[in-house]
Amino acid sequence: MSVEPIKTIEKADMADIALGGAFLGTGGGGDPYIGKLMAEQALDEHGPVRVADVDEFDDDALIMPVAMMGAPTVMLEKLPKGTEVGTALSSLEAYLGAKADAIFCVEAGGLNSTIPVAVAAATGLPIVDGDGMGRAFPELQMVSMTMHGLKATPMVIADDKGNSIVINAVDNLATEKFARVATVEMGGAALIALYPMRGAEAKKAILRGSMSLIKSIGRIIDAEQAANRNPAQALASELNGIRLFEGRVHDVERRTEGGFARGSCEIVGLGPNDGASITLEFQNEFLIARRANGKPLAMTPDLICLLDLETGQPITTEQIRYGFRVIVFGLPCNPQWRSDHGLELVGPKYFGYELEYQPIEALNG
Amino acid sequence: MSVEPIKTIEKADMADIALGGAFLGTGGGGDPYIGKLMAEQALDEHGPVRVADVDEFDDDALIMPVAMMGAPTVMLEKLPKGTEVGTALSSLEAYLGAKADAIFCVEAGGLNSTIPVAVAAATGLPIVDGDGMGRAFPELQMVSMTMHGLKATPMVIADDKGNSIVINAVDNLATEKFARVATVEMGGAALIALYPMRGAEAKKAILRGSMSLIKSIGRIIDAEQAANRNPAQALASELNGIRLFEGRVHDVERRTEGGFARGSCEIVGLGPNDGASITLEFQNEFLIARRANGKPLAMTPDLICLLDLETGQPITTEQIRYGFRVIVFGLPCNPQWRSDHGLELVGPKYFGYELEYQPIEALNG
Repeated sequence: MSVEPIKTIEKADMADIALGGAFLGTGGGGDPYIGKLMAEQALDEHGPVRVADVDEFDDDALIMPVAMMGAPTVMLEKLPKGTEVGTALSSLEAYLGAKADAIFCVEAGGLNSTIPVAVAAATGLPIVDGDGMGRAFPELQMVSMTMHGLKATPMVIADDKGNSIVINAVDNLATEKFARVATVEMGGAALIALYPMRGAEAKKAILRGSMSLIKSIGRIIDAEQAANRNPAQALASELNGIRLFEGRVHDVERRTEGGFARGSCEIVGLGPNDGASITLEFQNEFLIARRANGKPLAMTPDLICLLDLETGQPITTEQIRYGFRVIVFGLPCNPQWRSDHGLELVGPKYFGYELEYQPIEALNG
Repeated sequence: MSVEPIKTIEKADMADIALGGAFLGTGGGGDPYIGKLMAEQALDEHGPVRVADVDEFDDDALIMPVAMMGAPTVMLEKLPKGTEVGTALSSLEAYLGAKADAIFCVEAGGLNSTIPVAVAAATGLPIVDGDGMGRAFPELQMVSMTMHGLKATPMVIADDKGNSIVINAVDNLATEKFARVATVEMGGAALIALYPMRGAEAKKAILRGSMSLIKSIGRIIDAEQAANRNPAQALASELNGIRLFEGRVHDVERRTEGGFARGSCEIVGLGPNDGASITLEFQNEFLIARRANGKPLAMTPDLICLLDLETGQPITTEQIRYGFRVIVFGLPCNPQWRSDHGLELVGPKYFGYELEYQPIEALNG
């Protein structure tokens, strides 16, 4: 796909960014629509945000992602207002005794692809054209920074009541565990700033071009929708993606557990898939798609995206309802995730599935 | 009771301090015996600890309690070694950018009456002759400092693996909740430093004379044991206490839940209480003693202490076993706890009992 690098984000860009973020959110990360409203308001008030290539920064620049952590269903209910959005960032800056030179998105999907835009606008900081996942994942150690040996801590987690916590942990999995119980105690969602890193580290660790990719995906979906075409075909050809299944949502099971939205949904085939059915399982994000006989169609870390069958609009796990007519769309993950270390962090076994990872291209070859 | 103020703690004092701490631990706070060994080792290595009246410090001195937090059963398994014991204190000092002038015991019972002695010896700091409870209580907001409007935060919680967390919370109950889930995540027990306060605040908020009282209680128990007398009689007359019940432990039910040791024990009467039975319920500490008909004999915040019927040795909730012959001993709490604010913090309703607080003297008058 030819992705045009973006240099600024203006209010008019947010519709595409929210759309692209919803797609790469792979069902999780929360509906970016509300984050979009927050970002639009901040852009209105403070002007456009500069998007910078990570190479533009000095090796000793201070760069860190900001995000919202929690079960997406709860995140939507607990969205920060106005200046609150920068609370975790400013607390981490105070703890470090240094100001950030840039921020970035910890994940390229969902709310967390729009909330950092609001933070960047409110603080006047540039946003790096990159992220830590190339998609959305449910846990904070599941980032390219972990693969590159960077520590998530010191990390700040803050809520809307004025509580804030600084975590220093021995490794990123321990950080996730401490932050997750704190998030639950904060009511299920909280603002975070973490992985404070130097420019030199960011240049190695960040997955590049994510903001531009999100924008491009959003633009494709938007253009196809405007032409009354389902975007699935264009997305498949542009993104090297695979139309996995078409059908109707027959059953959804959903629970908030351990600070995550977990569950599954059964889809009964339509059109080319008439007579078949598949099940999608999720922990915030879709993790696995299986046929009725248990055979996998796609599995984490490859991307599983759910789109409306008519409009191509991405559907998050909390939006799924009985009767929805949908396309299940698969996309190969960033190649770094297919390394041994990558699969240790985000492969099916980490999530408790007794499955060897198989690339989506091999499963659907 | 005529309590002789102590000015130093030497190795030879630790036996009495552990005994007195076990008594005021009211069943909780962990067996001080292991904390005693830690303190003895530190006193051996670094020399005696100075015990200071809080009035000896400047109004702007930095004073804070250090403690171990968690389920007593787990605390005993996770006791810190050597220098580890000062981890939370030094992390909080680093966060505050200032050195402590003195430390004190957050509670006058159990492990937390001996661990701070080890910290004082290792750091060379004096220990204030006072504490925050006048006994042991299970939660960190249950201290005189809360009644005097002091904040528990910034608070550090640290484990033996190198994880540490700084909490800044809106109130002390929120601090307790964040610290409790972090403690559970740290394996059930952790070192803490909290309530950093100025000398002027300490002079108002600390319950005075606790170290001296602990030592005196220990001395009485020791002297009576040496004379082959049960210390209950001497303790009752010296401490204005009440022998509530004598009997044999018939049943114990114990579980670790939400980071606490919870449970109950049934005691069937012997001697003067033949034919009767009572139940003690605990959350780390004994909270309520009831007759078989449900009528209370004593309730929190008054002290309920369990002693061996023959030796008068205090028995912690985790030591109780079927068949133990015991005396249940009651003691009026510090009068501050009987205020409205005090009862809100530690009265029976806070712990879920639908009971109006009645002083132990009234229940046994």
